[in-house]
Amino acid sequence: MPPARSLAQELAAKQREISVAEFFERNRQILGFDNPLRALLTTVKEAVDNALDACEEAGVLPDIRIEIVKEAGDRIHVAVDDNGPGILRREIPNVFGRLLYGSRFHANRQSRGQQGIGISAAVLYAGLTTARPARVTSKVEEEEAAHVLDLLIDTQKNLPKVVREELALWDRPHGTKVELFLKAKYQRGRQSPFDYLKGTAIVNPHARLTLVEPDGTRVTYERVSTEVPPLPKETPPHPYGLELGELGYRLKSSNRPTLAECLTRDFAGVSPRACREVLDQAGLKGKEKPADLHGDALEKLLAALHQVPLVPPSAESLSPIGPMLIKRGLRNVLGEVRPDFYAPPVSRPPKVRGGAPFAVEVGLVYGGGLPADQPIQLLRFANRVPLLFQQGACAITTAVQNLDWRRYGLDHKGGTGLPTGPCLVLVHVASTKVPFTSEAKEAIAEDPEIDKELTLALQAAARHLKTHLSRRSRREFAEEKFAIIQKILPKLAAKTSAIVHKPIPDLTPVITKIMDIVNVETTVSPDSGRVAVRTEVTNYTPRARVLEVFLEMPREQFASGSFSPTPDGTDAELGRAWWTLEKLVPSARTTVTVTFPKGTEVETSDLSWYIAGIDEGHVLGAEPQPGDWDVRLPRAVIEAAEAGLEPDPTTEEQEVDYDAAEGSAKVEDDE
Amino acid sequence: MPPARSLAQELAAKQREISVAEFFERNRQILGFDNPLRALLTTVKEAVDNALDACEEAGVLPDIRIEIVKEAGDRIHVAVDDNGPGILRREIPNVFGRLLYGSRFHANRQSRGQQGIGISAAVLYAGLTTARPARVTSKVEEEEAAHVLDLLIDTQKNLPKVVREELALWDRPHGTKVELFLKAKYQRGRQSPFDYLKGTAIVNPHARLTLVEPDGTRVTYERVSTEVPPLPKETPPHPYGLELGELGYRLKSSNRPTLAECLTRDFAGVSPRACREVLDQAGLKGKEKPADLHGDALEKLLAALHQVPLVPPSAESLSPIGPMLIKRGLRNVLGEVRPDFYAPPVSRPPKVRGGAPFAVEVGLVYGGGLPADQPIQLLRFANRVPLLFQQGACAITTAVQNLDWRRYGLDHKGGTGLPTGPCLVLVHVASTKVPFTSEAKEAIAEDPEIDKELTLALQAAARHLKTHLSRRSRREFAEEKFAIIQKILPKLAAKTSAIVHKPIPDLTPVITKIMDIVNVETTVSPDSGRVAVRTEVTNYTPRARVLEVFLEMPREQFASGSFSPTPDGTDAELGRAWWTLEKLVPSARTTVTVTFPKGTEVETSDLSWYIAGIDEGHVLGAEPQPGDWDVRLPRAVIEAAEAGLEPDPTTEEQEVDYDAAEGSAKVEDDE
Repeated sequence: MPPARSLAQELAAKQREISVAEFFERNRQILGFDNPLRALLTTVKEAVDNALDACEEAGVLPDIRIEIVKEAGDRIHVAVDDNGPGILRREIPNVFGRLLYGSRFHANRQSRGQQGIGISAAVLYAGLTTARPARVTSKVEEEEAAHVLDLLIDTQKNLPKVVREELALWDRPHGTKVELFLKAKYQRGRQSPFDYLKGTAIVNPHARLTLVEPDGTRVTYERVSTEVPPLPKETPPHPYGLELGELGYRLKSSNRPTLAECLTRDFAGVSPRACREVLDQAGLKGKEKPADLHGDALEKLLAALHQVPLVPPSAESLSPIGPMLIKRGLRNVLGEVRPDFYAPPVSRPPKVRGGAPFAVEVGLVYGGGLPADQPIQLLRFANRVPLLFQQGACAITTAVQNLDWRRYGLDHKGGTGLPTGPCLVLVHVASTKVPFTSEAKEAIAEDPEIDKELTLALQAAARHLKTHLSRRSRREFAEEKFAIIQKILPKLAAKTSAIVHKPIPDLTPVITKIMDIVNVETTVSPDSGRVAVRTEVTNYTPRARVLEVFLEMPREQFASGSFSPTPDGTDAELGRAWWTLEKLVPSARTTVTVTFPKGTEVETSDLSWYIAGIDEGHVLGAEPQPGDWDVRLPRAVIEAAEAGLEPDPTTEEQEVDYDAAEGSAKVEDDE
Repeated sequence: MPPARSLAQELAAKQREISVAEFFERNRQILGFDNPLRALLTTVKEAVDNALDACEEAGVLPDIRIEIVKEAGDRIHVAVDDNGPGILRREIPNVFGRLLYGSRFHANRQSRGQQGIGISAAVLYAGLTTARPARVTSKVEEEEAAHVLDLLIDTQKNLPKVVREELALWDRPHGTKVELFLKAKYQRGRQSPFDYLKGTAIVNPHARLTLVEPDGTRVTYERVSTEVPPLPKETPPHPYGLELGELGYRLKSSNRPTLAECLTRDFAGVSPRACREVLDQAGLKGKEKPADLHGDALEKLLAALHQVPLVPPSAESLSPIGPMLIKRGLRNVLGEVRPDFYAPPVSRPPKVRGGAPFAVEVGLVYGGGLPADQPIQLLRFANRVPLLFQQGACAITTAVQNLDWRRYGLDHKGGTGLPTGPCLVLVHVASTKVPFTSEAKEAIAEDPEIDKELTLALQAAARHLKTHLSRRSRREFAEEKFAIIQKILPKLAAKTSAIVHKPIPDLTPVITKIMDIVNVETTVSPDSGRVAVRTEVTNYTPRARVLEVFLEMPREQFASGSFSPTPDGTDAELGRAWWTLEKLVPSARTTVTVTFPKGTEVETSDLSWYIAGIDEGHVLGAEPQPGDWDVRLPRAVIEAAEAGLEPDPTTEEQEVDYDAAEGSAKVEDDE
């Protein structure tokens, strides 16, 4: 018998199926369970992510409680409970006791869990390390009692095994609680459940999260928004980036009678007109049965779908955080750090990769108590979940490192690694299909489309930082000057007047002439009744000014505010109001007041002021009006109003002459 | 109807199983198929790894051919064929058309493929991107013809679908060929199939690998060793690092009649005596049925298994490369770079983590054509497979970066990142269970046990580097001195003699006195007959020397060499021979010759010389004898022999006196 014979047969005899549970039990590091610290974090994360997803699906404001108790030895008891819709009795075993089982994998919309692995993996790990079942308590609103199930996973079969079951009363009207007993270690600090919940609170400002630590300490992140984020809509796949094989499966599994109907209904972005064009280009009629397409015809169809312009993928399947909530989330959690500067958050419009839409958001915070001599803090998020491990392997990190931060005012040695400075950067990638590097969902894989969006968003945030830093140095200079002038001039005047035996003259015009700034200052009145926010605009420049001011604030606050004087215009959707202020002569001051109902929580930093009609170098306390806002007086109108004249219709177009015009106006006012 | 009611039911209706093929099709980045370049590399890698594993299992020297052909558009045709044992017809569909299916997952021994995912994933990706089936040709020795199957994967079921089948004649007596047609891109350079094969050749010096590139270029890595690495043995799991749940499963699935038998047979390292001790400590009798243990008894048993000293895990299940082959593999591939220094490779003894043995090996090369102003080159390997992606996420990289290379003579800015210098470091981790960070098997997860071994191995290699660098500077100084003395002294002597009208004296004793070194120089005779390697040892020190020299060379070469003079001892297993050389007076020289049969390929660097009986600062061309070798004359014997005296038995113990003794001996010789 030749030796290879027995071997081929021997090898064949050893071939067998590997259960997915067996596979992951053996490769638990892939799921994030490779050491006791990480195992605890992953467990908490999977449970909380599920809870948040469930609450979002039910449209309820999440109220989630995490309790971690140290048991004998290296064991920990974790309990996570939520006020979500609850899970029907018949689905509990599969949801918690079977890997690759779930409702979100096939739904084409953004969610935290997409794989159907996470929480079952935690149950698997708990069983592996302590041989103890997981306890799941769940109550749906329509039932009186909660179901309590103790279950394990049969690893070889990847199936749940319910070992005990009972009904119990529960004080929640609906919700789910999962309790696990596992080999783990609790510790605060980087990559801890504490850190994870802090990050989760930032990007889920509508959630209330309570953590009870092993020593009994209770940490609560209160919600700062009472708006449940709209549930992203399931949308069919978009043909951009679709592969040939995928198109084939879609057509085969379609039950539409014709190809034309299948294209317009089973795919996003294919309008009837585009469909016609695609069919023409592919040499097809549209009346074919979808399942009959293959070979050359299929290839031609795909080529046409990639060439004909289609409606871009909609953002409906995504749930970005949005600039306002990014800012508020950061402020809620960074409270004690008191940063000097919150850059206007950047929310890029959705793009597509591989048929799936995605969007990138960036928040940036600078100064205050952030450490100045350390690498910047990078907070990475995917679908509203903080990513705490594998920072070095993540596309977000690569994009941050590849930006040359020296051009934006940060120290960035050799332009490699993370830059140094008192700065925190938050990056959120939202997608119906986030390409994670592993099932532990801790890092985003490199992808040219995502990288491009990340870079654009980071650049935009970095430009805000640059502007802030240069403005800050100008402002510091102006403030110092202001302080010195207000101290020294009166003394000089007093001395000089005494010497020449003349009365002390009024110094305001002199101060004004030297300072040459418009100062915008906001104070919140500590009223016991209604909350009044007063903003004073003072003209410390030596000429009269006609100024336009713009206010922006969170939409909900905007809706409850009343304004005095009455704005010249408002946009409730964007939370904006604007005024053309009365003409301010040198040293004159005017006030804008916004009043809120009693008890409204509002801070000066909730109100962003923008100003037009003056060069930004002459303003303290407000930003220049962003160029893309469409409400704005033509500059010539302002010039003319300042001079007390009617506008000359011809100069309105002649931008090049503005400097000369301003020069002559200045001469007049300087008299 | 309350809103949560419909929702819980709605959600339940959406719950469903996710096929593992569906999961990986959607998350193909996890398997290494996220862009055309990486997809090609992963495909080649999975096919070649399987081929190498199969050849190793069959005990044949691998002869593998990889052909890459560019097709229309962005498509590539890849064919990989091997001379392995072949696969039985009935197993072909499952091996290539089903994820999580294989023979190596359950075998507790080192192999390249362990997951049963790799090659099926390539078939999946090919089907997805081109809708074309994979073609598998396989022939086992006992059959006349090869089976040729065209197959696809039914993603929803994760099952193979054979679309065409035939029998064909094939010129290989046995072997397997897989052909795929996929969306991919070929490009030489970093992270390319070219790079992968180069790395594979380094750590598999017994394989012959041929790559045919799309432009027709044929690159062949010839084997440099004709020894098939012994097939690692399957061993039962070792109780160290075993988790409670795992122990439970093992006992439940055991069919031994008693616990005692189960412990000694189904686990590694449990001797009958250790078993007795374990049972005593756990309060068990040993006669229990294994499956009956649970709860407290199980916990006590595990605790006892972790406390009682067991036989450490054997290395039989591993297949490390070994120092000699690491050196030869590096030399084979780095030929054109001509490094100055190959550090003696470090092969650490096996350790355990989580019940699985692992071993770390490190090779280090310095100088020559390696770029001096770049970060060092790091070659990572796991189970003899090069790791080309995810360098930043790999525990090997972390260990290299965490070593402070400044202490070993390399430039290492801030002690962070990779050090800079003309240096290449090879790191190999071999294990029955390598903890990869993802199924793409591109990076090893952080693990304290592995990290410790990596650090020890790297430190050992780095110490060799440090010694080399300091020796090099000493040697350079000595060589320069030697050259100057040999040039200038004769001229000086001639001039002076002419002036004083005396004959030119013999300068050798003077040169010797100034130089104070023993020079070891090896030359290979370019004989047409037998190959003679001559090593000359010259005593350029001003005193008589009794030296021991040690030769080390690859085992196979050693076996075919004959030595003159006859060695005082040999160790054929380790490839070592040693001599106590005749007493060498100042300026005297002696020769050791090793002769090999005609045609033997041998280079001076195949022979490593070590020397004892002299301080290393006085030697050129040989290393001091490593401290852990057990053949060595006591130093006092050498001293005494040099002085021509019998050894004084009392001084043998008095190490502290050696310096004084040498001092006085020197005075004598200096006369």
